[in-house]
Amino acid sequence: MKYNKLTPEIIKEIEAIVGARNLIMDEEAMLPYSHDETPADQYGVMPGVVVTPTTTEQVAELVKLANRHLIPVTPRGAGSGLSGGAIPIYGGILLSVEKMNKVLEIDYANMMIVVEPGLVTNEINGLVSDHGLFFAGYPMSLESCFVGGNIAENAGGGKAVKYGVTGQYIVGMELVTPEGDVVMLGGKNVKDVTGYDLKKLIVGSEGTLGIVTKAIIKLSPKPKYQSDLLVLFEDVDTSIAAVPVIFSKAGITPTSIEFMDKASVHTSCNYLNENLPYQQAGAMLLVSVDGTEKEQVDLDAERIGELLMKNGALEVYVADNFTTQERVWSVRRNIAEAFKVYSPHQSLEDIVVPIGAIPELMPKVEAISKKYDIAMPTYGHAGDGNLHTTLVKNPDHSMEQWYDIEEKALVELYDAVHSIGGKLSGEHGIGIKRKKYMQDLMDPVELKMMRGIKRALDPNNIMNPGKMFDLEAAH
Amino acid sequence: MKYNKLTPEIIKEIEAIVGARNLIMDEEAMLPYSHDETPADQYGVMPGVVVTPTTTEQVAELVKLANRHLIPVTPRGAGSGLSGGAIPIYGGILLSVEKMNKVLEIDYANMMIVVEPGLVTNEINGLVSDHGLFFAGYPMSLESCFVGGNIAENAGGGKAVKYGVTGQYIVGMELVTPEGDVVMLGGKNVKDVTGYDLKKLIVGSEGTLGIVTKAIIKLSPKPKYQSDLLVLFEDVDTSIAAVPVIFSKAGITPTSIEFMDKASVHTSCNYLNENLPYQQAGAMLLVSVDGTEKEQVDLDAERIGELLMKNGALEVYVADNFTTQERVWSVRRNIAEAFKVYSPHQSLEDIVVPIGAIPELMPKVEAISKKYDIAMPTYGHAGDGNLHTTLVKNPDHSMEQWYDIEEKALVELYDAVHSIGGKLSGEHGIGIKRKKYMQDLMDPVELKMMRGIKRALDPNNIMNPGKMFDLEAAH
Repeated sequence: MKYNKLTPEIIKEIEAIVGARNLIMDEEAMLPYSHDETPADQYGVMPGVVVTPTTTEQVAELVKLANRHLIPVTPRGAGSGLSGGAIPIYGGILLSVEKMNKVLEIDYANMMIVVEPGLVTNEINGLVSDHGLFFAGYPMSLESCFVGGNIAENAGGGKAVKYGVTGQYIVGMELVTPEGDVVMLGGKNVKDVTGYDLKKLIVGSEGTLGIVTKAIIKLSPKPKYQSDLLVLFEDVDTSIAAVPVIFSKAGITPTSIEFMDKASVHTSCNYLNENLPYQQAGAMLLVSVDGTEKEQVDLDAERIGELLMKNGALEVYVADNFTTQERVWSVRRNIAEAFKVYSPHQSLEDIVVPIGAIPELMPKVEAISKKYDIAMPTYGHAGDGNLHTTLVKNPDHSMEQWYDIEEKALVELYDAVHSIGGKLSGEHGIGIKRKKYMQDLMDPVELKMMRGIKRALDPNNIMNPGKMFDLEAAH
Repeated sequence: MKYNKLTPEIIKEIEAIVGARNLIMDEEAMLPYSHDETPADQYGVMPGVVVTPTTTEQVAELVKLANRHLIPVTPRGAGSGLSGGAIPIYGGILLSVEKMNKVLEIDYANMMIVVEPGLVTNEINGLVSDHGLFFAGYPMSLESCFVGGNIAENAGGGKAVKYGVTGQYIVGMELVTPEGDVVMLGGKNVKDVTGYDLKKLIVGSEGTLGIVTKAIIKLSPKPKYQSDLLVLFEDVDTSIAAVPVIFSKAGITPTSIEFMDKASVHTSCNYLNENLPYQQAGAMLLVSVDGTEKEQVDLDAERIGELLMKNGALEVYVADNFTTQERVWSVRRNIAEAFKVYSPHQSLEDIVVPIGAIPELMPKVEAISKKYDIAMPTYGHAGDGNLHTTLVKNPDHSMEQWYDIEEKALVELYDAVHSIGGKLSGEHGIGIKRKKYMQDLMDPVELKMMRGIKRALDPNNIMNPGKMFDLEAAH
């Protein structure tokens, strides 16, 4: 990786492209761009320069310049990432899309919206809600994250069981390639097998294969009613065994099937001063259904409740109004925050395993937790096997101990996940945080294919280099 | 493209890999492998040898041999393709997966099935139906096509509006790469952002990036009830303008929204001796809804019917029992056959356009039809803009005239589609049939990206070469 330094001459060229107002070189002003939501002390790196281009042409010119001078370019959305994907680990140009935040078109005839990458995701829902539509790719952080970041990470979220993840709704995109060409991939066509599906390759590639400068997003009919079930089980095994029953026996695809282990519920309830009836339960499911008819949604909830009672549930609580729904979802949403009060240093993981293998995973997590004397609450999206197992620093440990434990425990956690057919990340991405673990665990053939694609599309390796994998094998 | 000939020595090597029983060299026996469902006289090419391997290891050894000797390998499913993707245009090895047709595992806990590529798609539904499950990727030819072919083409079909296409359900695959390596991509994880999504790249790549030897398929809850609406409109514009209304105003995502122009309905009804009340209608929609509760399905059908009557429909006929459903769907399914009676020479197209642009397309199709004096019925999947406009030879024209007209009319049709943001193929693929048209119309940057990926993964260009695009630009 032999990149050139940013010389005053190159900075002048950059300024000529974006203008002085879109150039940040002040150290303090650049600081927020040195990290994302991963711990800054562990992963933060200062960029050489921050640029905030306002047009596709500027982005393309910047990328061409980067190729000419061999300067790395790191694209950045809202900085709400959880794997360090937007951190400029080799310095160079940090390209923030924050000023490319326009809604370019709302096309009701095609039920699509065309937006720039810097738009806050939830703004889409605000704009189209009155027309009975919504964006069904639903990241949990939708009130702060950008569309561009969602695409880069192929963001999932709480409703993925029924609605799938971001990529399913990206039907077209304008891309600035790693060589600085501008190309439109896809379009407003819902189906398309005209050549390789490059947009699906770009989605989730963490900005390593180009910068999305426009996205065409398919909207969906907005459900009008929702009902939530809080379901108590004696243990993890029984709760997970009940998950496929909902689909196959009830014939219903819920919006969400969230899983919380006892530690997660306990800590979050304490934090919120909430009094959920969790004491007797070893595990909880939070099941949501939605639809266009109240009667149908109520019926679905009732049938799922009855089925779960026949399949090992201890108790089913129905939350069919906004207040009770907010209460139960608040417990789920505040687990991470609650553990931060207990101990601010954490490693929020994002493992994904076959749903049926969750019971196999849990004792392995418990063993790691005991071995290193750290809390490892596990909660997340049981409906798709995506669990946010979190390593929480023991307050009695020193920071040195914690960093040492974190690394060792992560290796063991990922080994456990790998051994049951799981993967390192379901929705947060690999970035810099999980790169070495992925490279160690992934089949060398698969890694070779990825490296081949990266080399083919980014011959100078200037586009978000060093994320996901390194181009050369370390060993 | 300098491939080597199959020498007796190489044939001996091949026989050593697959055994004599899996080797076909007899001309007559090889004939069925020389074409797919595109006209054999126009597109057929004889293979050098047909092999029917029975294991992944044999496939991998064959591909390694092909690289060693520079022999092209053309993978083949059921041969029901409509773009010539399985035709061995450079001779060499035709690799049929017909003997790799086992169901390897039905995993109810994860609601997945693991199958070999030679399995007939519909067999999956037969196996899992009693468990309330089905394979929601639903190609129209599911009673004959293979899973491997569905994956290669990313097959769509009649239920794609609600359930999406094949790729959405392929969560994992074992792939023999173009270099003969065996790799497992994905797994039984529903969500996965661990590295580039290579399986999504392989899906729809028409066998040019490797041979899928195992597929892990996600199953879905099987709907129990269905209701169909046959909806008459005065003209195309009014019928298409009504499509987004169903989603946004009714809040319902139907299983299918099929479109038939007057010529399609007329010809199919005549062929079937069917008496649909189509006389007054310039266009028809066939709208299906499904679900787990009869009441809900009936209610959805009713609400859609009422909405469509308010949005320009002349008449709505409800088919809520098997007999009437079969009648209306039979008209839709038999359009292609009906036109074959009128004239056996046709070019069945598979264009896809933004739904809202269908009314813009129709006069263009009519103009081409008039200019060349050929029938061009248009029907297909209005719910996703995927239309099977068909060029039908005028019985008064000679074959020479027809071939000339076919080529010119296709150029004009594709130009028209391109001009309104559409694409050449929604579900049938590019193959050999649409290659030159795609290369002419596609942005050179996109083509360059595809060629780069192909070269990176298949350095010797032996894996289904000459399909979709050529490696070198012709001009």
